[in-house]
Amino acid sequence: MQPGACNFMDELDVLCVGNAIVDIIARCEDDFLVENAIKKGAMNLIDAERAELLYGRMGPAIEASGGSAGNTAAGIASFGGRAAFFGKVARDQLGTIYDHDIRAQGVVFKTQPLDGPPPTARSMIFVTPDGERSMNTFLGACVELGPEDVDAQIVAASKVTYFEGYLWDPPRAKEAIRNCARIAHENKREVSMTLSDPFCVDRYRDEFLDLMRSGTVDIVFANEHEAMSLYQTSSLEAAVDALEADCRLAIITRGENGSIVARSGETRVSVPAIDITELVDTTGAGDLYAAGFLHGYTRNRSMEDCARLGSLAAGLVIQQIGPRPHDSLRQAAIDGGLA
Amino acid sequence: MQPGACNFMDELDVLCVGNAIVDIIARCEDDFLVENAIKKGAMNLIDAERAELLYGRMGPAIEASGGSAGNTAAGIASFGGRAAFFGKVARDQLGTIYDHDIRAQGVVFKTQPLDGPPPTARSMIFVTPDGERSMNTFLGACVELGPEDVDAQIVAASKVTYFEGYLWDPPRAKEAIRNCARIAHENKREVSMTLSDPFCVDRYRDEFLDLMRSGTVDIVFANEHEAMSLYQTSSLEAAVDALEADCRLAIITRGENGSIVARSGETRVSVPAIDITELVDTTGAGDLYAAGFLHGYTRNRSMEDCARLGSLAAGLVIQQIGPRPHDSLRQAAIDGGLA
Repeated sequence: MQPGACNFMDELDVLCVGNAIVDIIARCEDDFLVENAIKKGAMNLIDAERAELLYGRMGPAIEASGGSAGNTAAGIASFGGRAAFFGKVARDQLGTIYDHDIRAQGVVFKTQPLDGPPPTARSMIFVTPDGERSMNTFLGACVELGPEDVDAQIVAASKVTYFEGYLWDPPRAKEAIRNCARIAHENKREVSMTLSDPFCVDRYRDEFLDLMRSGTVDIVFANEHEAMSLYQTSSLEAAVDALEADCRLAIITRGENGSIVARSGETRVSVPAIDITELVDTTGAGDLYAAGFLHGYTRNRSMEDCARLGSLAAGLVIQQIGPRPHDSLRQAAIDGGLA
Repeated sequence: MQPGACNFMDELDVLCVGNAIVDIIARCEDDFLVENAIKKGAMNLIDAERAELLYGRMGPAIEASGGSAGNTAAGIASFGGRAAFFGKVARDQLGTIYDHDIRAQGVVFKTQPLDGPPPTARSMIFVTPDGERSMNTFLGACVELGPEDVDAQIVAASKVTYFEGYLWDPPRAKEAIRNCARIAHENKREVSMTLSDPFCVDRYRDEFLDLMRSGTVDIVFANEHEAMSLYQTSSLEAAVDALEADCRLAIITRGENGSIVARSGETRVSVPAIDITELVDTTGAGDLYAAGFLHGYTRNRSMEDCARLGSLAAGLVIQQIGPRPHDSLRQAAIDGGLA
């Protein structure tokens, strides 16, 4: 290699692995959720038939690339970090949009698209007047993500491999994740996950606990509802204690109440949420918190700075429609004295 | 027909006819427009090859249904008016999105989608820091709109048939428009058009003048640049005088300087633009002005009220991303004392 030539394989901060989903976003009243049996604030898995039914009842919408880990990858890139993404789209118009948006953000994305059905995944996201988002996800091509989509070079090159708990829904993605974790650890890298959703935790509680307790996962992100769901407790304190015991580093987000960083043997760090002008749409809040935290983490920042970067990114994304920041997070970090 | 049964054919306020386009919207700096030879503030027509090139250079984007006359139809429906739309999409994912959004807004839309290529039209819209939008439109399936897509019953049932000057770009849409105008006038309805874009006016000046002078078109919407382009004058006053002489009713929009309604033999009406908090994206400003004006017009409101409804809708849409109002214009009219 010539001096000065750039080899991205030496240089990745975070590899994100997740369901590659295009969001279809519309506002609705709370009554609509009740009438259509949509669990508020949750990720509701739906089949093609229900997708068609709900779309027929949905108001005019806008589309934006989404997917939890994809949003995190985009956020890290927006901070100026070096991110990669594994996720499966189909070779269709929504897949083209997804591919464009994540690459245009500067994320390394090379997963082979699926030829033929099912189509690219989409999530119909209904945003109620309180800003809460309720998701209805048709997994589409995501069900085909498997171990053959793991690019070992990229895993080995990434300081942290981060994946979403939602990957336990499609049938073979968990195999891909176990391979990623093995390769990462063989290369002395770290593995991180988000618990994704309280109902997702409920579906895969034992497997998620095993991922932590077996050391497959080092760093866990959870919001308070997910943490309490994991340990089936109504005590946040008990959930944080248990999470701290079960993994090397636990980050618990608490919405407007900020976040807690828990690492065994160390003093816990609590950081407030940033002040916001108007809560528009909570979609992507957790994903962008993880982006900010992991960007700081892979740049060797203090735990407090990592949490503050997470709060900043989450606070910005909830003041706009859509799950990925419209403006540069790098600039926001500079403006916020966090660069 | 049973008493109380609803027959929409008796009841339409405005039929809008235009290119059915999905907008792909991203922010960019002014330098980007220069480097890529994009005419700022204009609608730049592009072919498939240039569409691919520009998309490869575009940042992360969001998608929203657009198209000038489609936006106007959506705006009229949002005010509570009864609107229909003729426009051609393909039977693909973007076409499904377009179809969904316009119907979900309450617009009657029945144009047969195109099977096979070309795909649904898209316009890559670059929004510069000053809020100005520069459009790059690949017409796709729109080139197939023709006289066979004219539903005579809908034309006859609509108080006003409104079309965009942009329809002179695809090859056969103008035939459809001439048919619509004939049917409308046979049914004692009115025909309206927007001049669309100064460069579009430059391409079709003689034909547009003929549409007015032959009485094919009764009501003309133009912004000041289009009006001055039409008459190749640098004097707005001269352009307004000429437009007033050439059609029964002329409405000239002047951005932040409001609008002028000119009707031969009557005192001109000037209405200011509404105060705005932040100019975000000018996409759809003219389309929504026409929506507000035509909604008032078809409800027999005064010229001043029509213009104020236009200013309201335009002022709201430029304070958000995307060309169709996210919030109810009916509610906005109530809140603004214009209902």
